Amino acid sequence: MVNEEMNGAGNLMDFLDEPFPDVSTYEDFHTIDWLREKSRDTDRHRKITSKSKESLWELIKSLLDAWSGWVVMLLIGLLSGTLAGVIDLAVDWMTDLKEGVCLSAFWYSHEQCCWTSNETTFDDRDKCPQWQKWAELMTGHAEGAGAYVLNYFLYILWALLFSFLAVSLVRVFAPYACGSGIPEIKTILSGFIIRGYLGKWTLLIKTVTLVLAVSSGLSLGKEGPLVHVACCCGNLFCSLFSKYSKNEGKRREVLSAAAAAGVSVAFGAPIGGVLFSLEEVSYYFPLKTLWRSFFAALVAAFTLRSINPFGNSRLVLFYVEYHTPWYMAELVPFILLGVFGGLWGTLFIRANIAWCRRRKTTQLGKYPVLEVIAVTGITALLAYPNPYTRRSTSELISELFNDCGALESSQLCDYVNNPNMSRPVDDIPDRPAGPGVYNALWQLTLALIFKIVITIFTFGMKIPSGLFIPSMAVGAIAGRIVGIAVEQMAYHHHDWIIFKNWCRPGADCVTPGLYAMVGAAACLGGVTRMTVSLVVIMFELTGGLEYIVPLMAAAVTSKWVADAFGKEGIYESHILLNGYPYLDVRDEFTHRTLATDVMRPRRNDPPLAVLTQDSTTVEDVETLIKDTDYNGFPVVVSRESERLIGFVQRRDLTLAIKNARQKQDGVVSSSVVYFTEDAPQLPASNPQPLKLRRILNLSPFTVTDHTPMETVVDIFRKLGLRQCLVTRSGRLLGIITKKDVLRHMAQMMNQDPESIMFN
Amino acid sequence: MVNEEMNGAGNLMDFLDEPFPDVSTYEDFHTIDWLREKSRDTDRHRKITSKSKESLWELIKSLLDAWSGWVVMLLIGLLSGTLAGVIDLAVDWMTDLKEGVCLSAFWYSHEQCCWTSNETTFDDRDKCPQWQKWAELMTGHAEGAGAYVLNYFLYILWALLFSFLAVSLVRVFAPYACGSGIPEIKTILSGFIIRGYLGKWTLLIKTVTLVLAVSSGLSLGKEGPLVHVACCCGNLFCSLFSKYSKNEGKRREVLSAAAAAGVSVAFGAPIGGVLFSLEEVSYYFPLKTLWRSFFAALVAAFTLRSINPFGNSRLVLFYVEYHTPWYMAELVPFILLGVFGGLWGTLFIRANIAWCRRRKTTQLGKYPVLEVIAVTGITALLAYPNPYTRRSTSELISELFNDCGALESSQLCDYVNNPNMSRPVDDIPDRPAGPGVYNALWQLTLALIFKIVITIFTFGMKIPSGLFIPSMAVGAIAGRIVGIAVEQMAYHHHDWIIFKNWCRPGADCVTPGLYAMVGAAACLGGVTRMTVSLVVIMFELTGGLEYIVPLMAAAVTSKWVADAFGKEGIYESHILLNGYPYLDVRDEFTHRTLATDVMRPRRNDPPLAVLTQDSTTVEDVETLIKDTDYNGFPVVVSRESERLIGFVQRRDLTLAIKNARQKQDGVVSSSVVYFTEDAPQLPASNPQPLKLRRILNLSPFTVTDHTPMETVVDIFRKLGLRQCLVTRSGRLLGIITKKDVLRHMAQMMNQDPESIMFN
Repeated sequence: MVNEEMNGAGNLMDFLDEPFPDVSTYEDFHTIDWLREKSRDTDRHRKITSKSKESLWELIKSLLDAWSGWVVMLLIGLLSGTLAGVIDLAVDWMTDLKEGVCLSAFWYSHEQCCWTSNETTFDDRDKCPQWQKWAELMTGHAEGAGAYVLNYFLYILWALLFSFLAVSLVRVFAPYACGSGIPEIKTILSGFIIRGYLGKWTLLIKTVTLVLAVSSGLSLGKEGPLVHVACCCGNLFCSLFSKYSKNEGKRREVLSAAAAAGVSVAFGAPIGGVLFSLEEVSYYFPLKTLWRSFFAALVAAFTLRSINPFGNSRLVLFYVEYHTPWYMAELVPFILLGVFGGLWGTLFIRANIAWCRRRKTTQLGKYPVLEVIAVTGITALLAYPNPYTRRSTSELISELFNDCGALESSQLCDYVNNPNMSRPVDDIPDRPAGPGVYNALWQLTLALIFKIVITIFTFGMKIPSGLFIPSMAVGAIAGRIVGIAVEQMAYHHHDWIIFKNWCRPGADCVTPGLYAMVGAAACLGGVTRMTVSLVVIMFELTGGLEYIVPLMAAAVTSKWVADAFGKEGIYESHILLNGYPYLDVRDEFTHRTLATDVMRPRRNDPPLAVLTQDSTTVEDVETLIKDTDYNGFPVVVSRESERLIGFVQRRDLTLAIKNARQKQDGVVSSSVVYFTEDAPQLPASNPQPLKLRRILNLSPFTVTDHTPMETVVDIFRKLGLRQCLVTRSGRLLGIITKKDVLRHMAQMMNQDPESIMFN
Repeated sequence: MVNEEMNGAGNLMDFLDEPFPDVSTYEDFHTIDWLREKSRDTDRHRKITSKSKESLWELIKSLLDAWSGWVVMLLIGLLSGTLAGVIDLAVDWMTDLKEGVCLSAFWYSHEQCCWTSNETTFDDRDKCPQWQKWAELMTGHAEGAGAYVLNYFLYILWALLFSFLAVSLVRVFAPYACGSGIPEIKTILSGFIIRGYLGKWTLLIKTVTLVLAVSSGLSLGKEGPLVHVACCCGNLFCSLFSKYSKNEGKRREVLSAAAAAGVSVAFGAPIGGVLFSLEEVSYYFPLKTLWRSFFAALVAAFTLRSINPFGNSRLVLFYVEYHTPWYMAELVPFILLGVFGGLWGTLFIRANIAWCRRRKTTQLGKYPVLEVIAVTGITALLAYPNPYTRRSTSELISELFNDCGALESSQLCDYVNNPNMSRPVDDIPDRPAGPGVYNALWQLTLALIFKIVITIFTFGMKIPSGLFIPSMAVGAIAGRIVGIAVEQMAYHHHDWIIFKNWCRPGADCVTPGLYAMVGAAACLGGVTRMTVSLVVIMFELTGGLEYIVPLMAAAVTSKWVADAFGKEGIYESHILLNGYPYLDVRDEFTHRTLATDVMRPRRNDPPLAVLTQDSTTVEDVETLIKDTDYNGFPVVVSRESERLIGFVQRRDLTLAIKNARQKQDGVVSSSVVYFTEDAPQLPASNPQPLKLRRILNLSPFTVTDHTPMETVVDIFRKLGLRQCLVTRSGRLLGIITKKDVLRHMAQMMNQDPESIMFN
């Protein structure tokens, strides 16, 4: 039965899984074998298909199995949408709690409080008697130095309380809940096992602490962690279906889709989410996953919309509408913003990685709670006096993106109006800036410096922290400043040759909000090196193709500038820093090394640990297993000929021998292990042989010693191998594992080879 | 110099390319070796990088090389956008030419003619004295039976003239210009060589004949052919840079991006275009290509917009704006439209393939000109009397998608108005249908039947023909009919329980235009099995996420229904019909066969043609080359041991021997060919040996005979192999080529194995 044998490994799994449930297929911090997972799934699928013809019940079961993928997607979409909505609402409320409380209902945020109040007028939307600042509530005085100091003090106190709670919860219950999670998810999706990283506790604690961390006013965002939360949801629902819970490859398809759902709810951009998952996060992304990701992203987005946390019935986080087109000459400032974004990306990555390395290697890393408390204290202390840093970062971005309408009450829209003007509301010409705008410019400049510095120290602390929002904030502030400058130049000097062609006096030429958006895209691109997904997310925010060219010009410039200083984005840098075995699909390996330069054993090493097909005893095997920690052993015809016949997994070998010793009579230490098709008939005096062909993988992957490493890297990447055997003229020479490949790549890039975690 | 050897093949190419320029790397109708192309490109890149440090000039050259990819994208975008604009303008004019002519300027289309006229009033936008129908111009009578018959006759005559010109041009100058081109482009992108398919002549002739074919009023669209035109542009610009022209792998990256640009200009949907290229057309789509495709698609879209052929300053082909949301209950008709789309897809594919097979196998195929003339005649004869088929199909779709505004003059918007109504223009409540609508319903039903039947016979004729537009037309007609039915039901029976919840009297509940759009998406999905890209294209047309759920529900239903009847979409079906060696990434190969079942030689075949490393003479090699037509030969240590040491390409062998015979003294027929590292020192009496280790590929791809075919198929797909050697315990057993894999897959699917073209 040749056909039976080919699935030996697959069938054996089931058989072996039961007797020793404590031995799982893959160990923690090991990489998975994609080819094997795939063939196991095909096997399972074949079994179900053939069974489905037997009875109606089996047919229904097979249909349920076929639909389970969609059910999982639906559940992921629903749960991650709901969680995102709950997080948004809670953050809104708790952020406002730092400043005051709603007397009519303490669970209302400032906006909700005044919205439900009858005494609110349109001009004073933000003021209503129900909403009281802490000082007013406690002392009865709303104004004055005393009230200010008391409010200031309570603001810092609340911030410290929130961040202390967040870091303590993370420390005690779920250490994996810290950070953005995207570097780890990238690594997991590429085939690494990190147990508990996507577990139920992580989900719960990350959701709660994310709310606390964002509310504490630290310079961090919720977008990255939302991707982690969505992936936890994905992992949770995987466990409902054995199709996904028992197959690490299939599980990763679900997780890719969950990542898309996470970005979808973070920005309200489902298409952008799918492209983000495709471009940035995923490793193996078949077309079926594309379609399912899209479904999950849409369900999540609509669930979020039905919760309507932003209160604007809009799907998107920052909804903007601009009324004027952009002009060719504006490409110059847009490209300059791109350069700024690239420089910011480089600065941030270098400084943040240096700081994180210091944290890992010095005493600093031993006091995570103290670190968080200190950074929160400094942040709150510096943030309160400046109105642009006091409010939540996403509100700030929202205001910076906004075009100044006629009814806008913001300081940024304090322009000097021409009293004779009578134009429609949405077509206001460029006007000279009023004192409010000049004031805002100063405050924005201070906010920019503050954000740049504090974000570097914030990202990487032991609390959930995303960097989309802080990066966008930096870009949006810089963009708005540039935008106002260009606008005022165009107003005051519209006879200059560069303005003459497109800016008549009295026309609305420059939209500073667009500059803010372009700047945000540039800075986000510089840090993450996203390109297509970034532009598409921004496209979904604006909802029109009109502004794609400025966004793209800035994103491309930013990427090029940042790439010139170093190829890795922030996520790749953190992966390298943490030494995860991540084989980047995008890195081109262009060195002229051969498989023979990489394979083990090296020149002075002991020979390769191999088994022979018919001359190894059980004891020999047990010794080999005890003395080495390899994942598996090649099996050769004989030590002389060194001709390869297969590969046997360490785990299968351990289990098979354990099993045989327990259940099979006559198997003793001196029994010979046979990997051949038939064991010879031995005299009765000899101990019973142990036939192990069942667990032998007869199709191990081989390359010749002359194969360029470029090709080997390609094979490892595309086929998701764990190891590959090296032969010459049919003789086994050595073995290359994924770890060897990564170490070699790191060496070639002159990086620290020791930083690669062993798989 | 081990490191030198690994690039033997790459270096050799340059060396061999020059002496015999007539022998190209790949022959026509052969498949390329992706791994080899990739390693050649890395080699080239390495050379440039190392040279760039030598001098400033080399540095500039290396920068130019790095930028050439973007330059090619820019050029593709500009040219394909321009061509699309020219095609649109020409089609507009020539379609109107069938009915009449503009007296003020004969090159104006009907709309342009009346637009420039001063005598046009808003109510009679379509009528102006400058525009005269043929009968009016010739006889002076605009009305009456005689004028009608004359117009009818001239309409048919023009149609016949256009289609005769189109088919003749295709026959005489560029046979490859026929059809939609997408099946062939898919095959080419998967690594097949079809010389001239993307040539300059094809570009020119396809552009011209596409205008003629669309103008003739046949039931075909310009979307598929535009993809072909854009790919021709891509191929054209590839030849400017040796980086792309000399590397078939790199060339395909450019072509993938060009396909995205093609869809981008076809619909004005750049993101949809990129996803179409990713989902439907491309085979190897690295992330770098994603970003470049996006750039090309955007440039193309903006070029088209600056030409502004639709005259509405919009980027998109069908711009729609709806004013009312959709309701949950409407999902029922939307899903029914999905079912209709799936059934239409199945019917169309089956009938069209049956007809095309008949054309291939019977006398019919011998008279392509006659066939086109006959179909055009029938189309024109039947189309003229019905106003919905007389006009161009894209105008029809546009009208069907449209929401009835207050100022709409179309027959479809002939509702009975309530004289007391005074509501804003864009919020008109549901009204009872007037006689115009009932009349339109009849005409639409006839148009639907006509379109369904005639499209089956049209697609596949020897003229450029796309099927996006006809498929969308079928769906839009069906959708609009359903939409009007639901609207009238809701109006007349708003007390019914299903309408009660969402449709108050006097409200605008149902938008028939949305039904048309959903129907169009469903039918297009049923035929092409596009999913994500389809929804995204539709999203870009409407510009809002609001309607994604209806579109997705219909697209998913349609795909599921159609998939239940057969997995292949129209493009895959045509690929199978034509027997192209296309290895679909989406087909899951789930059969339990092994490499040993597929490899050659088969049981009763002569043994595998191999070379030995040190005992074959030049004459033996020449005989082998003459007697066989294999692409290459494995080299073994000796015939006894059968241990594999490498693989040598037929072409390299031919050239090397030809070269040696001409230039190397002492190489005669009895010279021994050595593939070993050092040829032994032979006595002077022996003929000079021929050392060919340089052309030996020392890292041929091998699998064991026990490897499941599932894995083999995966390897062929992901690594893009041409052939793979089969070994057992280091002994060479046989060879598997891409052709063998395809034939085996076809056998397993019980399809005609002979239909696979030999590669």
